Amino acid sequence: MKINGKNYTAVWMERGAVCMIDQKILPHEFKVVKFSNHKATARAITDMTVRGAGSIGVAAGFGAAQVVLEGADKTDRRSYFKKGFDTLRKARPTAQDPFAAISRIEFVIQGIVDPVALKQVALLEAQAISDEYVENGRKLGVFGNALIKKGATVLTHCNAGWLALQDWGSALAPIYAAHRAGKKVMVYADETRPRMQGMKLTAWELAQEGVPFAVIPDNAAAYYMRQGKIDLVITGADRIAMNGDAANKIGTYEKALCAKAHGIPFYIAAPLSTFDPQCRTGAEIPIEERSGDEVVFVTGRTAKGKTETVRVAPEGITALNPAFDVTPAHCITAFITNAGIVKPNQVKKLLN
Amino acid sequence: MKINGKNYTAVWMERGAVCMIDQKILPHEFKVVKFSNHKATARAITDMTVRGAGSIGVAAGFGAAQVVLEGADKTDRRSYFKKGFDTLRKARPTAQDPFAAISRIEFVIQGIVDPVALKQVALLEAQAISDEYVENGRKLGVFGNALIKKGATVLTHCNAGWLALQDWGSALAPIYAAHRAGKKVMVYADETRPRMQGMKLTAWELAQEGVPFAVIPDNAAAYYMRQGKIDLVITGADRIAMNGDAANKIGTYEKALCAKAHGIPFYIAAPLSTFDPQCRTGAEIPIEERSGDEVVFVTGRTAKGKTETVRVAPEGITALNPAFDVTPAHCITAFITNAGIVKPNQVKKLLN
Repeated sequence: MKINGKNYTAVWMERGAVCMIDQKILPHEFKVVKFSNHKATARAITDMTVRGAGSIGVAAGFGAAQVVLEGADKTDRRSYFKKGFDTLRKARPTAQDPFAAISRIEFVIQGIVDPVALKQVALLEAQAISDEYVENGRKLGVFGNALIKKGATVLTHCNAGWLALQDWGSALAPIYAAHRAGKKVMVYADETRPRMQGMKLTAWELAQEGVPFAVIPDNAAAYYMRQGKIDLVITGADRIAMNGDAANKIGTYEKALCAKAHGIPFYIAAPLSTFDPQCRTGAEIPIEERSGDEVVFVTGRTAKGKTETVRVAPEGITALNPAFDVTPAHCITAFITNAGIVKPNQVKKLLN
Repeated sequence: MKINGKNYTAVWMERGAVCMIDQKILPHEFKVVKFSNHKATARAITDMTVRGAGSIGVAAGFGAAQVVLEGADKTDRRSYFKKGFDTLRKARPTAQDPFAAISRIEFVIQGIVDPVALKQVALLEAQAISDEYVENGRKLGVFGNALIKKGATVLTHCNAGWLALQDWGSALAPIYAAHRAGKKVMVYADETRPRMQGMKLTAWELAQEGVPFAVIPDNAAAYYMRQGKIDLVITGADRIAMNGDAANKIGTYEKALCAKAHGIPFYIAAPLSTFDPQCRTGAEIPIEERSGDEVVFVTGRTAKGKTETVRVAPEGITALNPAFDVTPAHCITAFITNAGIVKPNQVKKLLN
């Protein structure tokens, strides 16, 4: 991704520190933040300084490398590793990608005793994970582009672009590919309450890429579907079960139900690292319940250019805030993966 | 409705001025505002100082009485009346209630020439309209209560309570009646983007009444439906067509589609004044497109207790903002009216 003419990924490593674009303060400020140890990296995942299944996968991979860098010279290194990996695993519960990344680091360091080798192998693997996300995002673009007709209007929910998948994106990769191929696509971007990733991040990304788009309230998606203004829906995913159920940002299930009612194709774009071979159905996916403050308070810029948080609800009112929901397989037309287009009932076979 | 121990309706008239609770600044401030002429009243309807189909119906009725008070002594009174009524009719396009109220004032003053009689008749009719809303809200409560089982959980969208229907409410009237009958109901209140009438007004009303509730992001409704946590949905309406299609706050259609997919009853509560005998189907209902600023900016209270408006989207980003959508008759289980429970296919017969 190019930001103000410079190439970026969402997350990277520099001399043992995990660096990332601060997604909490975008689009109002563009700032790179650094975390010097795995505990700080885990906190950055929890507080959503970095978010999006792919990007928190990469961050967890780098964080796991930090665990190894920190612990390799200790005599009780194996218990340090275990504790550190657990800290990272607990950072956020729903997305599969961080679990997959941490397990890869855990796997490659098995049996290595030399501290220097431990560090090198962990760092190389973490970087490989990062590189694979970039390449997989590109492939999602290639495969997904084939599903998008000239002049199509695509609805997307939340942000599943550059920022969410290290580069390119999952849901947005096909859109970027179609746009670059001159297909004159148009995007309806759900604002995506409560954290407004659609209005804040997807709008910002699409504007940077020059893709025509309109931000809409989440409530308006079915309205535009009924008017025939939406040709297809593409969202990302946080975890996909073997029966083809998929967890993604809260509201995805509503969009899928609405798409189904209107006969509009509903695609989920995700790399294979988002598919969980241990998860039989969506009922097994843990759904993160976040603080109701994310609903009750809204942060933005005042007319004077100051960042301010305002309370929208009356004093004393709290809100429920499930961060994800599960879209059942029967609502999903197909998955756009780095291994091609996959129907929900082919998922199990694909992963075996 | 009782606010801080004092009885209120949403709108009333005092010595020629239309008085109303300022719904733009609730719940952070409770303030009564007065409008001394029909043009100011029309502006208060447009800028949503008063909102909700019933309450803007009452406000338009009082505003039409102001037109008569202002014009009765003029020699060109009939053209003054016509112009004034037109101004009020143009204040907001979607809800039927203001059109019905203005037409009632127009009808009762027909043929009267004495200025004093003109004024008296217009004022009496406007007050009668107001009184009827209160009584119809009470009846909606009685009929709707019969549909609510003990311990039921009800989802509602937007605000269709006291504030929206002069007193009692449309969608909330059955809930208030059930609550007062000791049925231990619980409410899920959609926050209702973009203007947050659910989080701001419904939450405030329910808290005043002591009805247990939880505010949820609009995106979470289907999530709770799938978990079996919602027994029925009740919303209000702005205009109901003769084929049983109903326009209501944007997002109502999504909730109706989701309810249908889960086999959950979906009711629309509205007095007969919301049914439009001239409107054959929902396709004929004009949908108001409001400023995208209502999506891009959010107003609330800062930690210091100051009211502040913040821009959520990146600079230069605009949003689409259709204020209403149409829920087709096939998604509506029944209408709760002041004449009883009415199936969508019985609407035409009811109004004839």
